[in-house]
Amino acid sequence: MLRAAAAAGRVAFGYNRSADGMKAAVADGFDATTELETALTRAAETGALIVLAVPVPALPALLVQIRRLAPECPLTDVTSVKQPVLDDVTAAGLQARFVGGHPMAGTAHSGWPAGHAELFEGAPWVISVDDHVDPTVFSTVLELILDCGSVAVPARSEEHDAAAAAISHLPHLLAEALAVTAADVPLAFALAAGSFRDGTRVAGTAPDLVRAMCEANWLQLLPVLERAIALLADARDSLSAADSVAELVTHGHAARTRYDNFPRHEIVTVVVGERDWRRALAAAGRAGGVIRSALPTLDSR
Amino acid sequence: MLRAAAAAGRVAFGYNRSADGMKAAVADGFDATTELETALTRAAETGALIVLAVPVPALPALLVQIRRLAPECPLTDVTSVKQPVLDDVTAAGLQARFVGGHPMAGTAHSGWPAGHAELFEGAPWVISVDDHVDPTVFSTVLELILDCGSVAVPARSEEHDAAAAAISHLPHLLAEALAVTAADVPLAFALAAGSFRDGTRVAGTAPDLVRAMCEANWLQLLPVLERAIALLADARDSLSAADSVAELVTHGHAARTRYDNFPRHEIVTVVVGERDWRRALAAAGRAGGVIRSALPTLDSR
Repeated sequence: MLRAAAAAGRVAFGYNRSADGMKAAVADGFDATTELETALTRAAETGALIVLAVPVPALPALLVQIRRLAPECPLTDVTSVKQPVLDDVTAAGLQARFVGGHPMAGTAHSGWPAGHAELFEGAPWVISVDDHVDPTVFSTVLELILDCGSVAVPARSEEHDAAAAAISHLPHLLAEALAVTAADVPLAFALAAGSFRDGTRVAGTAPDLVRAMCEANWLQLLPVLERAIALLADARDSLSAADSVAELVTHGHAARTRYDNFPRHEIVTVVVGERDWRRALAAAGRAGGVIRSALPTLDSR
Repeated sequence: MLRAAAAAGRVAFGYNRSADGMKAAVADGFDATTELETALTRAAETGALIVLAVPVPALPALLVQIRRLAPECPLTDVTSVKQPVLDDVTAAGLQARFVGGHPMAGTAHSGWPAGHAELFEGAPWVISVDDHVDPTVFSTVLELILDCGSVAVPARSEEHDAAAAAISHLPHLLAEALAVTAADVPLAFALAAGSFRDGTRVAGTAPDLVRAMCEANWLQLLPVLERAIALLADARDSLSAADSVAELVTHGHAARTRYDNFPRHEIVTVVVGERDWRRALAAAGRAGGVIRSALPTLDSR
């Protein structure tokens, strides 16, 4: 984030609790510190946009300090679950200045050396349009997203988490189940090829990472896991009656075809701050809409 | 098959019920006919190895004619399920001269124009080592496999079918279930990327093909489908108790890692026809063994 914001010509400074991380950033010419109080005091004095970029368990302690030292700063985050973060922010009394975000970019690596200024270019970056979202903070966060070269996808926090459960967390559990099942079948690995390799690729992800994302989003993961189990159980019941699996197979093919043809479009008509603007953006995001340049506001119109 | 056998320098001739298919082959310089009686009589006179290359439903009628006109010819097949074919061959009284096969090669296309002489090069080609298998017929079929440039993987028919269920048919059903589940979640397609694309790729396969292979192998597909459902149900129970999915995730990762490191080796020590040779080959195939050149026989030793 620090690299991308600086590359966009913004004044940006960072805090990291790791001295190694801070030193690596400073050595590369960036403005960084391990002193949280110094960083937050400076943010408050300059009215900086604060970007939370820590794991969920580290959030509450950080939010206490932000509440104490920079309560008026606009606030966003880059965490992969949105509702739990919003809950923590609300519990810390900082909800009014918060607009959550999730850049869908990154690698399997972490730490300062893993980043680069172009990491977010062209990536979809979810921006919260929950009921509490303030139009001015929204426009501030949107500007950062666009400065980083991303396209913004407006979404409500719980809808983001439900979608992430279906398209990311559920595929991980299915891949794990497929790998475990095939491992117990003699000859399976000897003959395995394309379908198995594709179907188990994400089972190669570090177990701690998979656990963390599935367990943090368990409330949204449960209903889609239930649905997948029910579909497979129906197919099993048909097979065990020597009957057809046409229903699952036909619907699956139709769904995949719809995904291949899912229309994307640019959102240009919604005015930030006008009546029902959050609801209009959430609907547009659901329909494949993305924001590629600053939206009009009530002031600018 | 006709192209590959001819390219290897073998005398080869084909039968196809389609006049178009026959004419296309003849136009390309191959020896082919639509007269089944002519082809089978010639096979009987020359002691040819007959390769069954028709869909499973077309087998019984063809086997009746082989039984009538060429009952002494060695016989193999190239079908993707092995036990149902063996059952049909046994029912036709041709088991003694039959050694099943399954070349794991091909494209989504069919008919004469879809083939080429190199189609089988480097592909694993399963060869049956069921209890009834005759050493001489086995060596005859193995020679064809090696002539086509493939590597032979010895396997028992029911083990082949169980492995195919785990590595091919189950992944198809999981992909269909994932596609159907995500399709019902608002915003899912808008955010879907890598994990979802990989996990649903095979849901793009023509529904009739997926149905045909799953339903033909339903007896072997059922237990692996049951197992996958049970693993997912355990994960669901853990999640709904706000507990960990560590068990599934850890085992899945370990299984995928084992697959990535599955050792392959060449089978060279088994003598075809010696005591327990079929069992030795089945065990070697399970352990990742492949046959790359003719095995010694009792005569040649």
